[in-house]
Amino acid sequence: MKHNFSAGPCILPREVIERAASAVLDFNESGLSLIEISHRSKDFVAVMDKAQSLALKLLGLENKGYKALFLQGGASLQFAMVPMNLFQRSAAYLDTGTWSTKAIEEAKRMGTTHVMATSADQGYRYIPEGFDLPQGIDYVHYTSNNTIYGTQMARFPKTDAPLVCDMSSDIFSRQLDFEQFDLIYAGAQKNMGPAGATLVVVKESILKKEKGSLPAMLDYQAHIKGESMYNTPSVFAVYVSMLTLDWLDRQGGIAQIEPKNREKGRVMYEAIDKSELFEGYAHAKDRSLMNATFNLNRPELTDRFNELLREAGIEGLAGHRSVGGYRASMYNALPLSSVQALTEVMGYLEQKG
Amino acid sequence: MKHNFSAGPCILPREVIERAASAVLDFNESGLSLIEISHRSKDFVAVMDKAQSLALKLLGLENKGYKALFLQGGASLQFAMVPMNLFQRSAAYLDTGTWSTKAIEEAKRMGTTHVMATSADQGYRYIPEGFDLPQGIDYVHYTSNNTIYGTQMARFPKTDAPLVCDMSSDIFSRQLDFEQFDLIYAGAQKNMGPAGATLVVVKESILKKEKGSLPAMLDYQAHIKGESMYNTPSVFAVYVSMLTLDWLDRQGGIAQIEPKNREKGRVMYEAIDKSELFEGYAHAKDRSLMNATFNLNRPELTDRFNELLREAGIEGLAGHRSVGGYRASMYNALPLSSVQALTEVMGYLEQKG
Repeated sequence: MKHNFSAGPCILPREVIERAASAVLDFNESGLSLIEISHRSKDFVAVMDKAQSLALKLLGLENKGYKALFLQGGASLQFAMVPMNLFQRSAAYLDTGTWSTKAIEEAKRMGTTHVMATSADQGYRYIPEGFDLPQGIDYVHYTSNNTIYGTQMARFPKTDAPLVCDMSSDIFSRQLDFEQFDLIYAGAQKNMGPAGATLVVVKESILKKEKGSLPAMLDYQAHIKGESMYNTPSVFAVYVSMLTLDWLDRQGGIAQIEPKNREKGRVMYEAIDKSELFEGYAHAKDRSLMNATFNLNRPELTDRFNELLREAGIEGLAGHRSVGGYRASMYNALPLSSVQALTEVMGYLEQKG
Repeated sequence: MKHNFSAGPCILPREVIERAASAVLDFNESGLSLIEISHRSKDFVAVMDKAQSLALKLLGLENKGYKALFLQGGASLQFAMVPMNLFQRSAAYLDTGTWSTKAIEEAKRMGTTHVMATSADQGYRYIPEGFDLPQGIDYVHYTSNNTIYGTQMARFPKTDAPLVCDMSSDIFSRQLDFEQFDLIYAGAQKNMGPAGATLVVVKESILKKEKGSLPAMLDYQAHIKGESMYNTPSVFAVYVSMLTLDWLDRQGGIAQIEPKNREKGRVMYEAIDKSELFEGYAHAKDRSLMNATFNLNRPELTDRFNELLREAGIEGLAGHRSVGGYRASMYNALPLSSVQALTEVMGYLEQKG
């Protein structure tokens, strides 16, 4: 039994893994593999439709003018597609770390990009607050959760401009008023599925560029028109995303998974805070329920800690290469028992050394 | 037992399907699924490295200044990326059907795009020949195989400009002097793997744009620098592509698969030509070994033919929705016995009606 704390791609529900493997061998008792049939076959079109409608249902955005698209290229391609599709003159971004910074770099190619605030001064340990929101802009952009630093936004200040949010690492993990957002995007490989699919949920009314003015693959309107099949989609990744969203729906949706995530976070941060050995990286007020980042105060115990982790079957705890230390990623599919296994090792190290 | 003639996504070797399913359950005996580990883990980096080196090896392009990249977005995104990366002033395209036409549309956004010739006048049943190649252009673009119409290029006229080829539907199926090309791209979902990965093989010396002048995800130089991991790649699709390339390599590579493809094509086209009931769509001289397109001359037999196909377990034979009729796709993994099963049904229909 492994405890999988990987930051992404990351743990998925075991029943999803098993159903995915089974579909690779024989999809829907067709005698053919999921990965060797036409994406325009009736069976796969049903998968795509279900994935789209589950995404909207779970976010509470059905029949509210939003479309759900399963695209390719990850959040990184969205960093470019968002400004391509929404820029007229200027946009405003909040810089909360590496992924925000990359999104800002791409926006700067397209036009005037205001950085409303940044927490770079303290290694992105906190979420800036009280910043000014410029008026007369095309959109405001946030990154809701910062995997590398372990911070998460609680509030999303907005203007009258469309609100765009990169939710790659915390979508479907907590209730929010999702209607406050006009465009949400997320790489699948955290709470939604395997790498290779990107969810884009967009309010159609904000897409005002002339149709056909962008390269088709970079144009949300072309993907909407093609019902997320403008070209061959990433079949396997969409299928496994559908299975994962269906699993979440059967758990009772976000309303039921959020308290579980809060309990995992409580146990994890309590262990960090009561320990003399470990220290949290992010400011307590902005801590993420998805990624707990921390350091070991006594470097001479590093080898011993790593050995204990290995013995306990704990995987994927290394911090991002840019900040080091440790990172416990606690996505939807991670059971509380895995967090307890980790906090037990931390407690043991503190007592026995 | 199904005979899978799907045009793509399409049949893959059974051992590849089985190994893929097994890795979804437990990858390399790690106790974790392939789809829930970091793409930067040692085991997956080895997969990416092997996929890249196998692609170059099979094409005979090792140590010749080429890089192999596994990107996302399919050939459709390459239609835009090729001009973005290579355009300075003008380019020349040959129009051999729908996919060429889409590539031309994207190029026209970037600059002067010469269409050297088109076979639209006869529904793309043939490959134009004897056309003029403009001089002083940035690149020449071909589509080597046209799945929809069942035509395939035998020769690739070139100038002193870089030669670009969309080989989505016939890469790894026949020996060519691949060194004549400076950039080859191919969606994985025919001879290489499942949907969700796109192979780009590019000669580095043709990339002359200033580094960082394009959105990173659309910049071949950024992907080369990131060793095809600028961002999270499509892990499952890359893994299955690696397995398929490894399977081909163990078969003896393209040199050994080509005669098998020729034999399948011979049997298929002989059945079409000797029959009064069926008629080939493409001109005989330009017929594709990958996709044989044909029509049934007596429409009143359509239901009977479809019934016989169903009884024989023959799948995926419908022609593309834009041309109708039938299309037998005979990619590398399709056994000769499947072609024989189809030609038997065709012969039976002719004799018994």
